[in-house]
Amino acid sequence: MSDFRSFEDFHPGEDIVLGSKTVTRDEIIAFAREFDPQPFHLDETAGETSLLGGLAASGWHTIAMLMRMLCDGLLLHSSCNGSPGVEEVRWMRPVRPGDTLTATARVMSTRALRSRPTLGVVTFLMTLVNQDGHAVMTQENTILFERREAAA
Amino acid sequence: MSDFRSFEDFHPGEDIVLGSKTVTRDEIIAFAREFDPQPFHLDETAGETSLLGGLAASGWHTIAMLMRMLCDGLLLHSSCNGSPGVEEVRWMRPVRPGDTLTATARVMSTRALRSRPTLGVVTFLMTLVNQDGHAVMTQENTILFERREAAA
Repeated sequence: MSDFRSFEDFHPGEDIVLGSKTVTRDEIIAFAREFDPQPFHLDETAGETSLLGGLAASGWHTIAMLMRMLCDGLLLHSSCNGSPGVEEVRWMRPVRPGDTLTATARVMSTRALRSRPTLGVVTFLMTLVNQDGHAVMTQENTILFERREAAA
Repeated sequence: MSDFRSFEDFHPGEDIVLGSKTVTRDEIIAFAREFDPQPFHLDETAGETSLLGGLAASGWHTIAMLMRMLCDGLLLHSSCNGSPGVEEVRWMRPVRPGDTLTATARVMSTRALRSRPTLGVVTFLMTLVNQDGHAVMTQENTILFERREAAA
């Protein structure tokens, strides 16, 4: 199998390690300022008095970092053609400045599309763990890939 | 009711209009460069040859813009204490440069927490429509709010 993946190259049960990312305080605050300016994503003191127990990244920033790892580790070397949606996003632990996050994509299922014979759908369970081995987020992504050989 | 909302101020069936946002080509490309550098989010020609049919915002950028409207239109004037997760994200139509997106949050259900008597959970159906009145995205968000009067 080459490094480039088409629909046929995904097999249920396979784990694909996507890469790692260390997040800085400046990145957490810059994302929050633009997209999620809640106090506990901007300021240590506000974070400490919140349920998050300290300054923590916006959950959407955490997802965006996962998406970048998914692009670099898989999608940019594939026949990816976008995604219709995502299921069951779970934010399980706060993401702190200095945390190193590692992303894995488990192939859950694959299905060729009857309606569009050039495409197939792959469902992944994405897991993001921190440097202590604790899961900070999971989500189920459905992604469209072109087939190497379209159905007759 | 004041403008500030606690858990008790949400009622199933209510629609809360969160605001609007016009997205530029530069914003679409800047987000994609950082978090989702797939060709159809960066380049008109690549977009035209993809399923998206033209340059289109990353779905995660669309969600981040919704989150900003949710903050400005509701959460920053509320007792919001974060969110454990999101269900059923659906990207229904491409978001193009120049599109004006309007967000609405429908209150689906409310539930006081037994395990944490100072908090309640509100589930929303978020809908983002474009300037033509077409839905471009929906998602179900579960958000924690402090109660004005904690249970005895």
